[in-house]
Amino acid sequence: MARKEIQDKLLRLGTDVVGQIKKGDNPYVSIPVRALSNVKFSESKKTLSLGTQESKRYFVNVAHARKFMQTLLVTSFCKDLVEHDIHASIREAYYSLKRNIADTHENTFEEQGESDPIIVDLEVMLDILREQLHLNADRSGVAAGKVTVEDRGDIIDWSKLGSGGWSIPSNVEDIRFRKIDAKFVLVVEKNATFDRLNEDKFWAKHDCVLIGTHGQAARGTKRLIHNIHLQSKLPVYVFTDADAYGYYIYSVIKSGSINLAHASEEFATPSAKFIGLTMADIENFGLQKYTIRATDQDIKRAREMLKYPWFGAKEWQAELKLMIERKIKAEQEALASRHLKFVSEEYLPQKIKKKEFLP
Amino acid sequence: MARKEIQDKLLRLGTDVVGQIKKGDNPYVSIPVRALSNVKFSESKKTLSLGTQESKRYFVNVAHARKFMQTLLVTSFCKDLVEHDIHASIREAYYSLKRNIADTHENTFEEQGESDPIIVDLEVMLDILREQLHLNADRSGVAAGKVTVEDRGDIIDWSKLGSGGWSIPSNVEDIRFRKIDAKFVLVVEKNATFDRLNEDKFWAKHDCVLIGTHGQAARGTKRLIHNIHLQSKLPVYVFTDADAYGYYIYSVIKSGSINLAHASEEFATPSAKFIGLTMADIENFGLQKYTIRATDQDIKRAREMLKYPWFGAKEWQAELKLMIERKIKAEQEALASRHLKFVSEEYLPQKIKKKEFLP
Repeated sequence: MARKEIQDKLLRLGTDVVGQIKKGDNPYVSIPVRALSNVKFSESKKTLSLGTQESKRYFVNVAHARKFMQTLLVTSFCKDLVEHDIHASIREAYYSLKRNIADTHENTFEEQGESDPIIVDLEVMLDILREQLHLNADRSGVAAGKVTVEDRGDIIDWSKLGSGGWSIPSNVEDIRFRKIDAKFVLVVEKNATFDRLNEDKFWAKHDCVLIGTHGQAARGTKRLIHNIHLQSKLPVYVFTDADAYGYYIYSVIKSGSINLAHASEEFATPSAKFIGLTMADIENFGLQKYTIRATDQDIKRAREMLKYPWFGAKEWQAELKLMIERKIKAEQEALASRHLKFVSEEYLPQKIKKKEFLP
Repeated sequence: MARKEIQDKLLRLGTDVVGQIKKGDNPYVSIPVRALSNVKFSESKKTLSLGTQESKRYFVNVAHARKFMQTLLVTSFCKDLVEHDIHASIREAYYSLKRNIADTHENTFEEQGESDPIIVDLEVMLDILREQLHLNADRSGVAAGKVTVEDRGDIIDWSKLGSGGWSIPSNVEDIRFRKIDAKFVLVVEKNATFDRLNEDKFWAKHDCVLIGTHGQAARGTKRLIHNIHLQSKLPVYVFTDADAYGYYIYSVIKSGSINLAHASEEFATPSAKFIGLTMADIENFGLQKYTIRATDQDIKRAREMLKYPWFGAKEWQAELKLMIERKIKAEQEALASRHLKFVSEEYLPQKIKKKEFLP
């Protein structure tokens, strides 16, 4: 989305309110409802999205007035950020906007827990990502492989960053792909797996892009995966532990999440496939002695996931049921029990060659 | 330390045990005691270190036999890693070494909680870092600035990595500094502060190296700070929140920690100085309305820290007492309440110019 369009949307929110005031109306803003009741899963698109329910936030309403004021403050702050081409973390936004309201004992914001939801409201109302509003969340994630990007005037070749890799920033909106010379994108849950595959030059031998998420993928990392796929159409394979948490990490990369249902189009990568670990891998690769007993929490989580439509595919239903029945889980590093390079020399190449993916 | 020397030390541990067996002795290894009772703080060096207490771990001793066996397994594993020039995470090490002991119901290791302490034992026994034994811990941390490093054959210019920066690997033993064109090293606790200073080109304007630790610094990040200082002799300034946790992050970078007392010489940077935030900054920079009430946990932590010799300097005693008395803390991002670039354009330049550091 062009900066001009973003500025126009922010300005329009303000001028609409001014128009309401001039007409003598009670000023309001309309906000799509973000509750679970308004979240839908599209079988065809394979993503979560928001429905059409909206609520109105009025200025002259004791229950709404504070949030109405906060909404306009955040809108104005973002307008300044975009105009001056400067970014802020959502915590900086809170501190920037917190102040005493003249002649009262009230502050505009008392804690970041008040400003964060307003930022999401604004994303949803305007259909603009917070990153496009120049607001950054925390970063996490690392990249390597045959990719060259342009970022703030620097040309960065991900294949020439040694053992470190490129630290994926929180905001990837202005990053342009100059070259993507790969056959697929491999997303891995753990730093240790990233390090293993990077040391073994997996990405060089198999012509792939390697992304480490370090657990649940941060917004910047999800957006980067989405953008690489959008531009290159390369297949995306996700590699996590065989446990409810790992499967969930995959589902968020593929289909989005309830919290981010309004932005699935921008974050999700619906064609992503799950490469492992699976319950079947435990037998097929001789890991039986290297599993871990699933906790009650793991089992509870797996039972919940059985009901999510985005785990509705028969393969996932079978996988989750097997996990619940056997009460076990397994870590990516369990493959090291065979030998250290087993994951890069045998496991991954074999799974890719046989196309043994879960949908 | 040269690879040959490391291999020799590992080999000697094994040959010593073989020698004991051949003599008909009960085989043992000697391990320096890592308990608090054997940790000392050197006022002159400003670092923590281990004392001279040692304990012996015997093979023929029901209380020692399992750990003795595990010690030799880990030693042998590390010898293989170094010989084959391959690295493993400490979790991969666990999975690699876990196996059934023939004709028994016993496994060599039951959980990573058994192998991790053995790895530390080995570090202490041999006076070799686990990184030099080719074992990696988790990574965290990001770097930018006028530094060029060589890593795995790649030449990496930290000033040309856009908004992302270089992801600091878990193991920095083989990284060589080709150029350090800076006047000081600035270490910051939070990713958001790293992003702020990176966007504002603070490192370019002030000729510095910028390191983000993302909370408590990982081993690789501490070692990198130590190595940059060792090579360049540049002053190191640490910038954290004004709270017990932030002050502790600083003390670990400067003086080491109880857990790592055996390796302070390799990880600590004793000349490091604390640039802020301090209790005095709250008044001096008008942040009074942007402080947070300290929790009971914060106060308890600060009281403990008052007793640590490495917080014995009168400036730190005064700082901690003030925090306990006022029961407040403040975040780096509170500086955004003045304006977003206040931290990079006013706060940091002013503190550095006036040399307002805590020791």
